[in-house]
Amino acid sequence: MEKLYRNNRLDKEELLVDETIFSIANGYLGTRGTFIEGYGKVFEYNQTYLNGFYNYYDYFYEENFSGFPQEGQKFVNLIDGQSMMFSILGKPLNINTCEVLSLERVYDLKKGLTIRTIHYKTIDNYEFILTEEKIVSRKFNELIAIRVNIKSLNFDGDIKVNTFIKESFKKDTSKIDPRIHNESINNYDYVEISKEKRSIIVKTSRSNLYLNTSISHDLDFKYEVNGNSLVGDLTVSINPDNDLNITKYIVHTSSLYSKNYNDLNTDIVNKLSNMSFSQLLIYQEKYYSDFWDISYVRIEGNETYERLLNYNIFQLNNSGGESSLHNISAKGLSGEGYEGHYFWDTEIYMIPYFTLTNPKKAKNLLMYRYKTMDKAKKEAFNLGYSKGIKFPWRTINGDETSPYYPAGSAQFHINSDVAYAIIKYYEATNDIKFLVDYGFEMLIETARFLKEAVNYDGEFYHLNGVTGPDEYTTVVDDNYYTNQLLKYHFENLVWIYEHNLSNLSEVLIKLKCTKEEMDEILNISKNIYLPFSKELNIYAQDSSFLKKKKLDLKNIPEDKYPLLLNYHPLYLYKHQVLKQADTMLSMTLLDFDDLEILKDSFDYYEPITTHDSSLSKCIYSILAYKLKNYDLACDYFKKVLETDFLDTHKNTKHGLHVANLGGSYLGFIYGVVGLRVRANYLKINPIVVSDITGYELNVMYHGQKVTIMVDDKLSVSSTGKVSLMIYGELIEINGTYQTALQL
Amino acid sequence: MEKLYRNNRLDKEELLVDETIFSIANGYLGTRGTFIEGYGKVFEYNQTYLNGFYNYYDYFYEENFSGFPQEGQKFVNLIDGQSMMFSILGKPLNINTCEVLSLERVYDLKKGLTIRTIHYKTIDNYEFILTEEKIVSRKFNELIAIRVNIKSLNFDGDIKVNTFIKESFKKDTSKIDPRIHNESINNYDYVEISKEKRSIIVKTSRSNLYLNTSISHDLDFKYEVNGNSLVGDLTVSINPDNDLNITKYIVHTSSLYSKNYNDLNTDIVNKLSNMSFSQLLIYQEKYYSDFWDISYVRIEGNETYERLLNYNIFQLNNSGGESSLHNISAKGLSGEGYEGHYFWDTEIYMIPYFTLTNPKKAKNLLMYRYKTMDKAKKEAFNLGYSKGIKFPWRTINGDETSPYYPAGSAQFHINSDVAYAIIKYYEATNDIKFLVDYGFEMLIETARFLKEAVNYDGEFYHLNGVTGPDEYTTVVDDNYYTNQLLKYHFENLVWIYEHNLSNLSEVLIKLKCTKEEMDEILNISKNIYLPFSKELNIYAQDSSFLKKKKLDLKNIPEDKYPLLLNYHPLYLYKHQVLKQADTMLSMTLLDFDDLEILKDSFDYYEPITTHDSSLSKCIYSILAYKLKNYDLACDYFKKVLETDFLDTHKNTKHGLHVANLGGSYLGFIYGVVGLRVRANYLKINPIVVSDITGYELNVMYHGQKVTIMVDDKLSVSSTGKVSLMIYGELIEINGTYQTALQL
Repeated sequence: MEKLYRNNRLDKEELLVDETIFSIANGYLGTRGTFIEGYGKVFEYNQTYLNGFYNYYDYFYEENFSGFPQEGQKFVNLIDGQSMMFSILGKPLNINTCEVLSLERVYDLKKGLTIRTIHYKTIDNYEFILTEEKIVSRKFNELIAIRVNIKSLNFDGDIKVNTFIKESFKKDTSKIDPRIHNESINNYDYVEISKEKRSIIVKTSRSNLYLNTSISHDLDFKYEVNGNSLVGDLTVSINPDNDLNITKYIVHTSSLYSKNYNDLNTDIVNKLSNMSFSQLLIYQEKYYSDFWDISYVRIEGNETYERLLNYNIFQLNNSGGESSLHNISAKGLSGEGYEGHYFWDTEIYMIPYFTLTNPKKAKNLLMYRYKTMDKAKKEAFNLGYSKGIKFPWRTINGDETSPYYPAGSAQFHINSDVAYAIIKYYEATNDIKFLVDYGFEMLIETARFLKEAVNYDGEFYHLNGVTGPDEYTTVVDDNYYTNQLLKYHFENLVWIYEHNLSNLSEVLIKLKCTKEEMDEILNISKNIYLPFSKELNIYAQDSSFLKKKKLDLKNIPEDKYPLLLNYHPLYLYKHQVLKQADTMLSMTLLDFDDLEILKDSFDYYEPITTHDSSLSKCIYSILAYKLKNYDLACDYFKKVLETDFLDTHKNTKHGLHVANLGGSYLGFIYGVVGLRVRANYLKINPIVVSDITGYELNVMYHGQKVTIMVDDKLSVSSTGKVSLMIYGELIEINGTYQTALQL
Repeated sequence: MEKLYRNNRLDKEELLVDETIFSIANGYLGTRGTFIEGYGKVFEYNQTYLNGFYNYYDYFYEENFSGFPQEGQKFVNLIDGQSMMFSILGKPLNINTCEVLSLERVYDLKKGLTIRTIHYKTIDNYEFILTEEKIVSRKFNELIAIRVNIKSLNFDGDIKVNTFIKESFKKDTSKIDPRIHNESINNYDYVEISKEKRSIIVKTSRSNLYLNTSISHDLDFKYEVNGNSLVGDLTVSINPDNDLNITKYIVHTSSLYSKNYNDLNTDIVNKLSNMSFSQLLIYQEKYYSDFWDISYVRIEGNETYERLLNYNIFQLNNSGGESSLHNISAKGLSGEGYEGHYFWDTEIYMIPYFTLTNPKKAKNLLMYRYKTMDKAKKEAFNLGYSKGIKFPWRTINGDETSPYYPAGSAQFHINSDVAYAIIKYYEATNDIKFLVDYGFEMLIETARFLKEAVNYDGEFYHLNGVTGPDEYTTVVDDNYYTNQLLKYHFENLVWIYEHNLSNLSEVLIKLKCTKEEMDEILNISKNIYLPFSKELNIYAQDSSFLKKKKLDLKNIPEDKYPLLLNYHPLYLYKHQVLKQADTMLSMTLLDFDDLEILKDSFDYYEPITTHDSSLSKCIYSILAYKLKNYDLACDYFKKVLETDFLDTHKNTKHGLHVANLGGSYLGFIYGVVGLRVRANYLKINPIVVSDITGYELNVMYHGQKVTIMVDDKLSVSSTGKVSLMIYGELIEINGTYQTALQL
């Protein structure tokens, strides 16, 4: 797979979806696949985002209770430096003024380059082919570069070119969807608009972040300030023998990442004056070549699988993790759904990919949590607890910003989710330094909060009044997922304590961590209550879940999904109906190995799960592979891969489902490869199925690159000595090892 | 008790509290005890309310889920017709410009008259005594009449008098209290401002209700229109031998109560031109004489008890129930707390008083529910159910308007609360016509909703995901109160069905009510699950309550109450802590008679109840009397009586706690008199205690007035034949019956 194609999709909804599909990012900066010349109508979603760049706005509650977050945080669209206008005989070229004879889009995944070619016919019957090539640079994190070629087929005369820096389009808002904030405050105060520097400096109105947006070109424009915009003007001749060629560089620097963001901007612009688009492409190729070297997954049997899985990995990789000053939002840098907030999605659905291919990025993502511990401490206090920290359910800057606590702050499992990612990172990398310097502190502080929250009845510890992953069931007692993750978190915390005492001595003193506290934590991990139904031979989602009425999903018409848009929460909460995998997610993460209980649980929960959340199908896919229900597994896996590409959730226009991108990776490595990370070995149980007859992929484990190749046999090779458990057999590998497939 | 006095309370907070204490109402119209001359500063709460007169405003949710009410309803202050200004040498007389040498207030409860006397000294050392007498008429429901006397002690000259119709003061808003809506929309469109008619006609901006406010006086003013105000001007001489005497009539008529509200207004004004304030007082005395004849409770042993109990009864009586077009709001007509919404407070805490003293008003209150059944039908559908009706948790016009469902729409018990009041009304009055025409339809439709909501597990019926009375515990399974009230509701519905078949035949056909449906209802009533702890010998508040951590209330400082203002709901929901009586309320309403379980339950729940709700202490008082814990009972009862008078909840400024007014009546008749209504007899178990050594009161039962008198013996007399169960013995009385007290 090298390229992805989508042609002649010109409906408004298709355009908005393709803006997302053709979004490009470098982890810092992201831009949607809009048209540089615009659509001539204001239904555009905004274009450019900077990871972690946000503004505040006031939350309003009709009943404003103690402890509710009072400020929202919102991803803000950057000042738009991309827009241009190309006018023929006074009329701009765009899909509103012209007939479109064809539209072709290509995503070149070897370069992180999008190429859009559109064939316009004006009302005067002049025809032009406009080609826009766009990259978000891997040389300069702050740079978007766009090369435009306009070829005239039958026009000879002047083409007027305008170039802009201006405020972005306002978002198309929707009143009825609780997942999208409906609001338009004035996000920017203007600090400076400079013709000379061709730049606009703004400050976010409430969060006080500065942004310097500058533009430069390989042609000379005459600039004017027009209100809060900077407009460049240029007229050139065009005819069938002479194309218009122009490259535009947009540099966004911010006080978020650099104190000297103004100097930095100037510095980059100066460097760009000697650098062509083609030269920038060389850096792109180099970066993505290294990236694909480790990340590419080759699949035999179904070309779609390989194409979509690698596209998903590509977009996941570009969504963040470049710095510990940011994380990865639910929509990455591809849209404004969920207001650009970071969730547990990162730790549970995304980090495994980074841990296994680029541990440095996994560490960055975990370090983001470490750096926000003071805010998590404040939130613990806010929730009524005197000890430990509570990581936020949704946030940009680390403060809890969930305005609906039943499906927000009540999700106490976030603490153990972060702990799980830390433990898995440590197991995969053996990065003791990280554990000692940062990881252990997070493990203990998150545990301290939960330790204060649990409730001992003389026999078991209970966790009352929390919400698990399934948001169609909220504020319940003893959510199995939460308790099981807590158990894992506490057990591993104690294990690390016991096995790394010498390395940890300093941090133990700093954190006033005693043997008594560790015994208490161990005791809780041993006696945390896990609700189980003997009758059904399944773990219960929580202590009351199995007592509720079932909702017959077969009788609910398709247009009533997602249920949260059509049913009162109270109705959903009264029924056994799941938005997403819950108990089953825990069984996936912890590699639950009682296959009878696993099967009975799967058979119980699967029919009552709507998958209204995009975090769900990948999990059922993995378990179906494990249960050898391959048709169902492949069906789920295929749907996971297609989620954004086929817009199956009908909201890809709001951005990519990044957790699902990670989920598709998990679906493959956990499901098909049967890979699991353990502290002392890497476990794999590779299978082949009708659609997936062979494959090849790499993972990093304990600093070694391990290549797994499946065709009619299994070949494993590694760059150094590693231990693997292959089909249940522990084997030390150094070089290449081959064995028969066990299906 | 004839009069209530409060003197020299001039602090801002004292003034605001006394505005509430000296509020007057006639069920339709109510006004706060503000000063006709104002305070000279804008911290006044608004003055005048018309029961059921409201406006809409948009609700805003950060996460707007399906089924959430999208419009708020809010009691709106009427156009202010009361204000006047009295100026001496260009300066108005008020507490801001003058020294106050004394302030005396009297509430004459025999006339429904407040008299305020204030002694002003101007900065020029002139002294005046201003006396304001105010009534809300019992002759004309639409009339407020105010008589002002100003006596000069040492000034001889002109006094300038201004009289106004104008928009009311804006409410003093508070951002942090979820119980008060913080918002100021423009409620009125001005339709007509007329000098000739001395009236202003407005229309509420969203609910389209018209209001005509006119003023007239016994002196002639010159009028001018000033913006949206009408101002009357008059200058008269005043000196120590010549007082200023003026009577002002304010008539508020509305399209809510009369299509011809303009003609009605003119008609009343015409009648008033021949009617002095003294003549109006005669009507007042007549009305209140009749009222006290049936309602007065004489208490020996503690004057405070008698004074406050009768004050509370007086204010309860004046809060509503005059028409089926309105109900009684949580604050009556005395303030804007809870936005003037009607709650279950009416059925559970207020109606018993009316049922026992003025059944016509009880019927009006129930008929209000009947008239809003179409909206309750809509709400049932909104919550996901296809059958029956769901009465709103809070409303003015019948539509659910609770923006926080966990302590709102989730309180499914409202349906059985209404049913309970219907059943008790029927038992006390034998009003079969009401039952056949209206009551049965409400009983069955409310039951149908609950019938669809319950969940059968093969042995018991459960009600999942509902909130009981205690709002510190929300959205739980099998709340005991809810299930027990449902049981009572369903049992009695079937009983009525079985005993009134002939009368009901028409309504049964209309409602398609079959024997099968009744059998199903009976079956549910027999097998509804009531959570019980054998270990503790108590009923559990719900299926998970007893498993939660207890909150040690002794360690919580006093300034942290009410807890809802200081703790995140999630923290409260995780603990065994009650805002108000829950299980114990059910045991009170249904006269639970296993004294061991009752005592164990009382001892369990009482220490973990904060009484942050004013609906709580009266219930614990009643049960403590029943359990012969008289010191505790009297302590609770006294606190109930004093709630508003001593402002013990620190929010009496927002209005009277009307449910608590009713609760003080319940405390006496259920607690001290041991009175309970049964279908075939009235049960009483009168006691005397140290503070209450004797008493006399009347109740209506089956159309007869029954007088209960306790001194060293018990005397019961009735106007006709009635059955009583006295100390467990069934006795038929016709005339007077005496017996020894059984303590």
